[in-house]
Amino acid sequence: MKQMSLGLSMRYHGYHVAAWRHPEYRPGCNLDFSSYRAIAQAAEAEKLDMIFFADGLAVRGVDRPEGAMSHDMRNAELEPLTLLAAIAGATRHIGLVATASTTYNEPYHIARKFASIDHISGGRAGWNVVTSWSDQEAQNFNKTANLPREERYARAAEFVDVTKGLWASWEEDAFVRNKETGEFYDPEKVHVLDHEGAFFKVRGPLNSAPTPQGHPVIVQAGASAQGRDIAARHADIVYTVAQTVEEARDFYADLKSRAAELGREEPPLIMPGITLYVGATQAEAQAKFDELQALIDPLAGLNILYNFVGDLSGYPLDGPVPQDLPHSNISIAKGLLQKAKDEDLTIRQLYETVAAGFTGRYMIGTPESIVDDMQLWFETGACDGFNICPPLLPQGMEDLSRFILPELRSRGLFRTDYPGTTLRETLGRKRPVFGAARTLAEA
Amino acid sequence: MKQMSLGLSMRYHGYHVAAWRHPEYRPGCNLDFSSYRAIAQAAEAEKLDMIFFADGLAVRGVDRPEGAMSHDMRNAELEPLTLLAAIAGATRHIGLVATASTTYNEPYHIARKFASIDHISGGRAGWNVVTSWSDQEAQNFNKTANLPREERYARAAEFVDVTKGLWASWEEDAFVRNKETGEFYDPEKVHVLDHEGAFFKVRGPLNSAPTPQGHPVIVQAGASAQGRDIAARHADIVYTVAQTVEEARDFYADLKSRAAELGREEPPLIMPGITLYVGATQAEAQAKFDELQALIDPLAGLNILYNFVGDLSGYPLDGPVPQDLPHSNISIAKGLLQKAKDEDLTIRQLYETVAAGFTGRYMIGTPESIVDDMQLWFETGACDGFNICPPLLPQGMEDLSRFILPELRSRGLFRTDYPGTTLRETLGRKRPVFGAARTLAEA
Ligand SMILES: Cc1cc2nc3c(=O)[nH]c(=O)nc-3n(C[C@H](O)[C@H](O)[C@H](O)COP(=O)(O)O)c2cc1C
Ligand SMILES: Cc1cc2nc3c(=O)[nH]c(=O)nc-3n(C[C@H](O)[C@H](O)[C@H](O)COP(=O)(O)O)c2cc1C
Repeated sequence: MKQMSLGLSMRYHGYHVAAWRHPEYRPGCNLDFSSYRAIAQAAEAEKLDMIFFADGLAVRGVDRPEGAMSHDMRNAELEPLTLLAAIAGATRHIGLVATASTTYNEPYHIARKFASIDHISGGRAGWNVVTSWSDQEAQNFNKTANLPREERYARAAEFVDVTKGLWASWEEDAFVRNKETGEFYDPEKVHVLDHEGAFFKVRGPLNSAPTPQGHPVIVQAGASAQGRDIAARHADIVYTVAQTVEEARDFYADLKSRAAELGREEPPLIMPGITLYVGATQAEAQAKFDELQALIDPLAGLNILYNFVGDLSGYPLDGPVPQDLPHSNISIAKGLLQKAKDEDLTIRQLYETVAAGFTGRYMIGTPESIVDDMQLWFETGACDGFNICPPLLPQGMEDLSRFILPELRSRGLFRTDYPGTTLRETLGRKRPVFGAARTLAEA
Repeated sequence: MKQMSLGLSMRYHGYHVAAWRHPEYRPGCNLDFSSYRAIAQAAEAEKLDMIFFADGLAVRGVDRPEGAMSHDMRNAELEPLTLLAAIAGATRHIGLVATASTTYNEPYHIARKFASIDHISGGRAGWNVVTSWSDQEAQNFNKTANLPREERYARAAEFVDVTKGLWASWEEDAFVRNKETGEFYDPEKVHVLDHEGAFFKVRGPLNSAPTPQGHPVIVQAGASAQGRDIAARHADIVYTVAQTVEEARDFYADLKSRAAELGREEPPLIMPGITLYVGATQAEAQAKFDELQALIDPLAGLNILYNFVGDLSGYPLDGPVPQDLPHSNISIAKGLLQKAKDEDLTIRQLYETVAAGFTGRYMIGTPESIVDDMQLWFETGACDGFNICPPLLPQGMEDLSRFILPELRSRGLFRTDYPGTTLRETLGRKRPVFGAARTLAEA
């Protein structure tokens, strides 16, 4: 029986915008490595496929409405690649995925760092490819505004090609290390890339050995046509945001057929984000939800919306969301306005929705009702698993252990042990093929 | 009584060019995290100040003489920042220093990653600032040749300013995390950099909290006037290469006076590299040395020299080193030619010298004779400690434990326990001062 993949998204120690105001949230835990380590080890004890860190390259908010920014906890975090490496050394089985932007990095660094984490972890690294979306990021990297989407994705496409080309620099058996002859590697088995493209000029080879997984797993998160194209071509996993099962099925079918058209043998696994409020009873779950929602500062709520649809502080909080807003260029913004319209939401309700699920989907329920829903999605072509974005950590992980995983397992929907040692094996995916014939063009 | 600082340089599992051919060298150990971890833990058990990783951003060699490159072990390593982070999670006291180039990085990434390692390690991170030296590195980063020294160092100076400015983004008490009022930070205590210079345009603030050390320790390695200038201005530690005590005293005096002229209260600590071949008797030490020297492949030997003084394969191996060679622009090259001249070395002897000490200084002796020498340097103004570059690891660390450290301790020259928890405390240095008044110009 096919089983689902589950990831735990660990950023900020909880995705709820008011997580840090929860009575049990320990101030500063988001800077405390031992706390991440404990959660990762708990996730590993439960055989989750992977932990995941989103990322941004700036204090991304702007102070709209005035005074709002200082109410936002998402300003000072650990850097995900160093954090992932530290967790790699303290775990043995769980996959380790972190986000890195193709817009504000160089392929050589990214290829090298993820390869290194793959070595350190014994084959558990994954790279979440994103193109970044805020002007604040651009302003930390010699620019004034974010690049237009076309250019970001053109760069991303070339970036991933170069990175995969660098990962193929050394054939699996290139290192002969012959103590007798003094030959350390076979020069026939190392490849120079000599890439020259619109964005990058990279000679190679990478100064890193082939990694335990062949190369790290590739994850993609970006919903536009351009994002889907990169996902279809390269991704092992696609993170998505979907509010309804229909929407998710459309995305799923679209992405699998794009991959098939490109002749990929193994299409990407599709993993929508979900935020769970779960209790032994519906009332218990609802109480968990209500407790956090009551802690949302209206300033913080308006501040989240600002990134997507601009400053709404001039409108009544309990009035309707205006539909003629000049929304931002990213797919999430359009989806939000649509949702506000479809569900007749007030401004407060809209930010409460976003705060509760951080642009993803949230559910409030018992183990049975939530797993019913997950099973429906999984078995009717809406997804291959879920990227779980808990409102609060470590509580969200404890809720998985206590409520969700036993129910999933009782239905045979989730594993009881790791099938192998690498993330690729956990995901049930084949090792990428390397060899003398593998050139950049084929990668 | 003043005590010396000691670092262990861990790259490649040994600096001797033939280390990998040693009968006890386990093939692939340089890709094995658990092996680095064990050595770092041994160094911590002995209360060393720090471990250190050099770095390069390319397979740096070129194939001269033909066929030589494949005899060089220095081609595929773990990436030092990820490796350091992984070791951070597995140690508690030892300082953690890694190299990052200012020529092929962006300050925002470097500020963030080292800050993150400082958090993860509880205040033990250090950044070794280098400007890189090979064309192969340039060719992996959109260029054809390395930048001229003036430009590299102009960029480095601005890079360090921006990085320190980013580290000062948040005042120590900026994060109020007031659950009652919803105020997460005090907006008066966060600073935007708004840097615009010749090389970088960086707005800030850094999305990272002030680190346990205030900011990570700064190390510098580069011997030219421009390199010394950056060291005098910013460094806590300077790595050097010195063959004689006179040379080392000159460097020491020069750097301390440059720092004094700049009004620095605490001048940098000077730590020359040394490679030790030590045994209970002189004969035992010599045997260790001879065993490794006998394993040097002439091709590998000529290949090391190539980077500094070009292809010498046309000259007789046992003939003199020609003095009219077009040597490379870096300080080490000049020093090597001088040494060859002063000591009347043959080509084979020159590469044997480099191989034995990897451009640093090496000693063959008993604990007494070696510690006599270290003490002389330490007590006569030649250094504040040593950066130990063992020919072979983990053996080099075992030799320190067994021979060198007991002797140093019996003379009161080295600590018996860590004085505090951070690297800064271990080094006996003050915490950098932050505050609203701290602007980029003052950093
Ligand atoms: C589920 C999901 C997760 C994302 N995570 C990140 C992230 O961690 N960091 C980031 O910079 N962008 C992230 N993005 C943004 C995208 O990578 C992309 O930059 C943005 O969505 C604009 O591209 P698009 O129009 O293709 O969606 C995420 C997007 C989605 C859909
Ligand atoms: C002791 C020492 C260690 C060095 N370590 C590195 C290193 O790990 N990586 C690197 O790229 N350069 C390293 N360098 C090179 C310098 O940073 C610098 O790029 C080069 O020496 C040229 O500059 P200079 O003329 O100032 O010496 C080192 C130099 C010295 C003296």
